[in-house]
Amino acid sequence: MSDPRPSGRQADQLREVRIERAFTRHAEGSVLVSFGETRVLCTASVENRVPGFLRGKGEGWVTAEYGMLPRSTHTRNDREAARGKQGGRTLEIQRLIGRTLRACIDRGALGERTITLDCDVLQADGGTRTAAITGAYVALVDAVNFLLKRGDIKRNPIFGAVAAVSVGVYRGTPVLDLDYAEDSDCDTDMNVVMNDGGGFIELQGTAEGHAFRRDELDALLLLAEKGIKDLFAAQQAALASA
Amino acid sequence: MSDPRPSGRQADQLREVRIERAFTRHAEGSVLVSFGETRVLCTASVENRVPGFLRGKGEGWVTAEYGMLPRSTHTRNDREAARGKQGGRTLEIQRLIGRTLRACIDRGALGERTITLDCDVLQADGGTRTAAITGAYVALVDAVNFLLKRGDIKRNPIFGAVAAVSVGVYRGTPVLDLDYAEDSDCDTDMNVVMNDGGGFIELQGTAEGHAFRRDELDALLLLAEKGIKDLFAAQQAALASA
Amino acid sequence: MSDPRPSGRQADQLREVRIERAFTRHAEGSVLVSFGETRVLCTASVENRVPGFLRGKGEGWVTAEYGMLPRSTHTRNDREAARGKQGGRTLEIQRLIGRTLRACIDRGALGERTITLDCDVLQADGGTRTAAITGAYVALVDAVNFLLKRGDIKRNPIFGAVAAVSVGVYRGTPVLDLDYAEDSDCDTDMNVVMNDGGGFIELQGTAEGHAFRRDELDALLLLAEKGIKDLFAAQQAALASA
Amino acid sequence: MSDPRPSGRQADQLREVRIERAFTRHAEGSVLVSFGETRVLCTASVENRVPGFLRGKGEGWVTAEYGMLPRSTHTRNDREAARGKQGGRTLEIQRLIGRTLRACIDRGALGERTITLDCDVLQADGGTRTAAITGAYVALVDAVNFLLKRGDIKRNPIFGAVAAVSVGVYRGTPVLDLDYAEDSDCDTDMNVVMNDGGGFIELQGTAEGHAFRRDELDALLLLAEKGIKDLFAAQQAALASA
Amino acid sequence: MSDPRPSGRQADQLREVRIERAFTRHAEGSVLVSFGETRVLCTASVENRVPGFLRGKGEGWVTAEYGMLPRSTHTRNDREAARGKQGGRTLEIQRLIGRTLRACIDRGALGERTITLDCDVLQADGGTRTAAITGAYVALVDAVNFLLKRGDIKRNPIFGAVAAVSVGVYRGTPVLDLDYAEDSDCDTDMNVVMNDGGGFIELQGTAEGHAFRRDELDALLLLAEKGIKDLFAAQQAALASA
Amino acid sequence: MSDPRPSGRQADQLREVRIERAFTRHAEGSVLVSFGETRVLCTASVENRVPGFLRGKGEGWVTAEYGMLPRSTHTRNDREAARGKQGGRTLEIQRLIGRTLRACIDRGALGERTITLDCDVLQADGGTRTAAITGAYVALVDAVNFLLKRGDIKRNPIFGAVAAVSVGVYRGTPVLDLDYAEDSDCDTDMNVVMNDGGGFIELQGTAEGHAFRRDELDALLLLAEKGIKDLFAAQQAALASA
Repeated sequence: MSDPRPSGRQADQLREVRIERAFTRHAEGSVLVSFGETRVLCTASVENRVPGFLRGKGEGWVTAEYGMLPRSTHTRNDREAARGKQGGRTLEIQRLIGRTLRACIDRGALGERTITLDCDVLQADGGTRTAAITGAYVALVDAVNFLLKRGDIKRNPIFGAVAAVSVGVYRGTPVLDLDYAEDSDCDTDMNVVMNDGGGFIELQGTAEGHAFRRDELDALLLLAEKGIKDLFAAQQAALASA
Repeated sequence: MSDPRPSGRQADQLREVRIERAFTRHAEGSVLVSFGETRVLCTASVENRVPGFLRGKGEGWVTAEYGMLPRSTHTRNDREAARGKQGGRTLEIQRLIGRTLRACIDRGALGERTITLDCDVLQADGGTRTAAITGAYVALVDAVNFLLKRGDIKRNPIFGAVAAVSVGVYRGTPVLDLDYAEDSDCDTDMNVVMNDGGGFIELQGTAEGHAFRRDELDALLLLAEKGIKDLFAAQQAALASA
Repeated sequence: MSDPRPSGRQADQLREVRIERAFTRHAEGSVLVSFGETRVLCTASVENRVPGFLRGKGEGWVTAEYGMLPRSTHTRNDREAARGKQGGRTLEIQRLIGRTLRACIDRGALGERTITLDCDVLQADGGTRTAAITGAYVALVDAVNFLLKRGDIKRNPIFGAVAAVSVGVYRGTPVLDLDYAEDSDCDTDMNVVMNDGGGFIELQGTAEGHAFRRDELDALLLLAEKGIKDLFAAQQAALASA
Repeated sequence: MSDPRPSGRQADQLREVRIERAFTRHAEGSVLVSFGETRVLCTASVENRVPGFLRGKGEGWVTAEYGMLPRSTHTRNDREAARGKQGGRTLEIQRLIGRTLRACIDRGALGERTITLDCDVLQADGGTRTAAITGAYVALVDAVNFLLKRGDIKRNPIFGAVAAVSVGVYRGTPVLDLDYAEDSDCDTDMNVVMNDGGGFIELQGTAEGHAFRRDELDALLLLAEKGIKDLFAAQQAALASA
Repeated sequence: MSDPRPSGRQADQLREVRIERAFTRHAEGSVLVSFGETRVLCTASVENRVPGFLRGKGEGWVTAEYGMLPRSTHTRNDREAARGKQGGRTLEIQRLIGRTLRACIDRGALGERTITLDCDVLQADGGTRTAAITGAYVALVDAVNFLLKRGDIKRNPIFGAVAAVSVGVYRGTPVLDLDYAEDSDCDTDMNVVMNDGGGFIELQGTAEGHAFRRDELDALLLLAEKGIKDLFAAQQAALASA
Repeated sequence: MSDPRPSGRQADQLREVRIERAFTRHAEGSVLVSFGETRVLCTASVENRVPGFLRGKGEGWVTAEYGMLPRSTHTRNDREAARGKQGGRTLEIQRLIGRTLRACIDRGALGERTITLDCDVLQADGGTRTAAITGAYVALVDAVNFLLKRGDIKRNPIFGAVAAVSVGVYRGTPVLDLDYAEDSDCDTDMNVVMNDGGGFIELQGTAEGHAFRRDELDALLLLAEKGIKDLFAAQQAALASA
């Protein structure tokens, strides 16, 4: 039999997912999302301007920025603002979040405005980017509802939902939603973003130790599909609450 | 009679102060401090190294960094990490926080280690720097207690306490602990940092509109002394809780 | 029937692959790799030092940097050195190349030295990152052989081979090795890195238009496996020549 | 009795103050101000544009930049232009100078133009920021007179005067206008900016050693008031000369 | 008799010069120029915009950027894009190339467009800047011919030709076109840029060891004149080929 | 007859040259040099460390930094420290000054220390780099004399002297020591650095308008030789004074 997970979870078990809306008050959408001990604050900010390449085209833009508070991690990391630049990992993650959320929005229906999703990690325990995507979607919905309620836009530009989860091969066993203890000791790590139609938006798999075989990949994708289904339910539950 | 305050507070009334310890789990000290709607996460991180100018001198260092999440404010501000540098206001505030906390610590007793206070504003409503100082003190105490408990240091390097509050002349009346509505519309704004011996650590007053007279200054200092006394009580209450 | 490809290629047909060794003379390995009109110069440089986090551990390091000459593309791009920073795409690609090549090297056998793979795009026509990985592997082998011949290392630290190719869904049809005309007009774009044992090293799929279904993913992976087999043959042929 | 000052000055005695107008020829105002051995070149430059946030509002802007020549100090400091950024102290000081001078100008009467005060320290011996403010005021007056003489503006936008001095507690005694020997060895250091109506513009006090008591603060403010009165006289004398 | 040159060349002998047009396909002009083992890729890019200071003046602009691939040299140099800035040598060279090419173009006849010459060193063996100038001229001609053929401009804005060569005193003997072995061991190094009317465009001489006398200067200038005459012939031959 | 010079000077006439030693007090050498209205403050700072590439070799280093105060010029220039980088012109000039002064010093005799020449332009009217070189030489001599007097070095590492002047073709006539009015309107501009043995250290000539002929070059070199002879006399006179 395979190694038990450090957390004692089943191989196909998510950590406890919490999605707390209106966590802060100024943003049009503000969500604190938790995947177990990983906590990310996702705010959605609406601005009535678009990047230069879209000006005058009648289309909107959705983009994301990502950051980790210096001591969200086990040991303190340098503050990127103090170092004077964002690292490659940060840029990679924020590009991923932005692409992913643009995949569920009709930019024409949004009109010439930008929604920026700021995803700031308050506490990290693995899976910050997948939690960020899952929470940012809810913040985006709240921001769009704000625009709809004000009459700034006429019809809902969001179609479907997106959510994300990590999967990996931990000591020989494919498992769902890796925490830090697993993430730092696994052979394969894959982030999967899907929409609620069952389609893949992004797939990013990396062999940390040995290369992964096709059958491992298939097992990982099954786990991811299951986990993301649960995340869609959590998003809908959060959005249904007052 | 003078103009009432937008919040309806008395001239010498603080906003509700909350100090929540162990807000995040990795840092040696982690405090979420709230002055009304202003919320700042202050973490204290211990590292076994000192800046170059102190190496080999047997002394420790206490320093601070400050940041605002992009949408902690009414309208979104650029992320400093993305712009590639910290602004003048940020540098000014983090220098102030660091100086202030170094004023209550015996750096020899701390030994060759650095404690970094990261003060990140989750939500801003005026007074972020004074909330940060007040909360960072508690995080510093927790980090020092962590070192004492582990036996890394023999005696407590902290002497006394420090806390800070803003005062200002709002529509002709000296008032305590300005919120954003007052701060953006006041004639004089002063930040006062004191220790629990009744001494001044820092005094930074700025005439935004007309210059302030000596009698106004005297009134403001009285208000600050009163407010800071209440803040010391809040710090002690928080530290006394489990 | 499906749309023909702009180049007239079969769906499972690579572009002409050329791998020219010793393209420049100073580097320990220097390869000009062409995937059709995409041309990337990959040099491998050996240096007798390792990054700080590896110092004194008896292990080596393999890393990569990536750049595009400003006019390697249809319209001129800003020079990253002049703009003062590398963009997110550049960082993402060079991180990918480095990870990928570290997956086929025994860093203990390499000893405390660093091999840097510089991948500079002279001409771009889609697939620059997959060409870069495929060419950089050959440059890495040349650099390692240089060290073996000089007796600097005793046994070959390279195990297996790695190569990479892109696949995508172009107008409804899964196709192999996208050129620029296809890349800029496809629904799904996936980069696949494999080793010669048939294992996956990296998998990065992005839905540009509609989300991709599981059956499309399966078809893309089959194409990639076929293409990469041909790339391993091209690498071996190049390495076998004088 | 208290310790004598290193310079032999009385506790309430300024250093020799010299204000030399038209020190350089291109600027609309150019003043070399000396507080003893501290020498700062203050130039005022008029430009017919305003920052973005003021465009089209019919108001002008006054701003300041500050720098120290690398060898204005006892040991050479890095050149900020070479390091690629201005330090926190520099930003703090130039923000102070700008705020201070905006406090004595009617920006509507200035019209849509910017006056930039460049304060460059040729030689430092303590009190560079207070000398800079005191000298920059004279340069500002000269620049405004230039505009009046040319008929570019109809009425004088300057009301009142501003000047600044440092005070501190040196070895137990409150003293006026600290030189470097005192500044680097004092318990409390305070910079005071006042207008000629006797109002305070800025007050920045820092306890370097022990916290300062209220009675010390009162004594320091008295000294500052006296010193600034003398500085106003020096400014007027300089402006009265040809 | 004097020391023979490391390459065995005569004192007044150029290295083999090759000028290969259309080396890459996207640029309006693309030239790979070789001075012996020094190989520089020079591309000319046409853009329909001019720098701010020329906007609306009906004049065009010609500018240059220069870079060395990290391993174009004997030992690897840091990538300037990764370091975050271009070094002084790079800026100096690209300013030289730009000035030089502007000396043979009628900017009014070019119209409001910019031609950027990117000179990227693929392999360095001394004389990269002189090779770059010589090759960039050919790329510029190709780009202008592209504009003429399309009818974008009516008459040829290029007058005359420019080319460049280095000369130096190597072990007491004035020699033409220094390679790296000579360059790193010579007393005087001079770069000469001339036009085909026999006039000097740029002259940059540096005494690396002892200062050079007037008679040495005269000898160097004679060598340069001869070498540049040969380079003009090579340029014309390249431009005459299909 | 040729156009008279704007200043009324003879073609071979320098502007009034003043060299004022000990202009500031902290630096080991401090010289205010004036070429007419061009005024440059040159300080020489001695530090007991050398750059990394010289460590442990028993040799010293001489280097230079150059800057212009923002309003040293007719219209205000951006402060390089605020822009976050030194421009190409600045880097080019400071590299020139450093190279030039290293040409007259025996770095072995200097020992493992660095002398940094900071050349800061207080007022610009053409020829700032030649004035800087000429003044920096005197500051260097003062710094070396300081070391000799203290016994830090045993013998004088300086051999000979260096000075610099600009020459140019102004409206058809070769003239010496161009001021700004001439510099901005001349056909050829050349900076010449020589030693007192009559040898050339640097020669940098640029055709701003038409290319310059060999006979013009000869005339310019004659003028430069004459002017530099006068500058050597001015340096010696300054050094001879108390």
